[in-house]
Amino acid sequence: MPRQVDHEGRRRLIAEAVCRLADERGLEGVTLRDVAARADVSMGAVQRCFRTKEEMLVFALGHIGERIGERVRVRLVRSPAQSAASALGHAVTEVSLLRDEHRAEARVWLAFLAQAAVSEVLAKTLKENYAALQEAFTRLVSEAAADAGGPAALDPRLEARTLLALADGLTAHVLVGHLTPEAAREVLHTHLTHLWERPAGPPRTG
Amino acid sequence: MPRQVDHEGRRRLIAEAVCRLADERGLEGVTLRDVAARADVSMGAVQRCFRTKEEMLVFALGHIGERIGERVRVRLVRSPAQSAASALGHAVTEVSLLRDEHRAEARVWLAFLAQAAVSEVLAKTLKENYAALQEAFTRLVSEAAADAGGPAALDPRLEARTLLALADGLTAHVLVGHLTPEAAREVLHTHLTHLWERPAGPPRTG
Repeated sequence: MPRQVDHEGRRRLIAEAVCRLADERGLEGVTLRDVAARADVSMGAVQRCFRTKEEMLVFALGHIGERIGERVRVRLVRSPAQSAASALGHAVTEVSLLRDEHRAEARVWLAFLAQAAVSEVLAKTLKENYAALQEAFTRLVSEAAADAGGPAALDPRLEARTLLALADGLTAHVLVGHLTPEAAREVLHTHLTHLWERPAGPPRTG
Repeated sequence: MPRQVDHEGRRRLIAEAVCRLADERGLEGVTLRDVAARADVSMGAVQRCFRTKEEMLVFALGHIGERIGERVRVRLVRSPAQSAASALGHAVTEVSLLRDEHRAEARVWLAFLAQAAVSEVLAKTLKENYAALQEAFTRLVSEAAADAGGPAALDPRLEARTLLALADGLTAHVLVGHLTPEAAREVLHTHLTHLWERPAGPPRTG
């Protein structure tokens, strides 16, 4: 089915063009016309791949989410001998997109995050991404806490939520120049270090 | 100088229209024409107030930043008898924009954050906001740590950075529906509670 294969390849090509344009100008600068020009296809070809601009953005978001998810998985399996705490540290840093070569991805991710606040279909795609990340992080927090001599005074799911929010906040603060990537890494490292130092038993309330 | 007073009032009126449109559609949906219609002024009037769309967005961002900053200050002085830890908790929750009535502000803030990643002048305004918040939070963390029987094993500036990033990440995750406002509050509360439980002395490394 050469036509079908072509179609999927073209969708990915267009998604890449969307991401490059979003990186340069924000999602605001992503027009059908410019996407077609950047992907070097006709506007009709773009319209045959995606019925609406939103459908195109959802596909591009899924595309970038897969790429980030794949890198997180690679970090997790690269060294089976590493501790759960160390795997978690690598995964959180990867999700934070702090490295220079991921600056473009970070910008595009943040643009999608903002647009998802006013678009239900984008929000649905993002929620699926966050749910999968939360599940993976919850498992790692549990394992790391057990390694640290648990039961520690922590709720793995809540700590996974904390880490994901912290990662996205740091991504944004590095992008706007409030923090350097080094300062953001220091925040993550310090947060994780203290996580395994918590006293055993239920957390103190109040 | 009645004309000058008029001018400033009109700029604020236009900024409000920008925020309402951004809330409904994202910054992408903010056009000069629609802003004029929403503010019930002519397009010429908008153009006399702001030379470019970017100038208009920067003013609107400053406007919303002032409003949030003012609420944070009110939370901090409302009860002089409250502990520094409690004041910090209130201030962080306020910055996180978790209350239903601040949903629109949260959406607009996130849209500005994303756009600032591709606009230097927006980034400059945001950085000034974050620098001021970081200073206020650093002071409160210092005071709260001292109250808790310090010297605790924490770096006030680093913890202020953590709190600001966590707050923005939670804002985003509530907006896209990954977390409920209650879950986000629980994350903040747990994070702050454990901050004052840290053992004294320098943090363990590794």
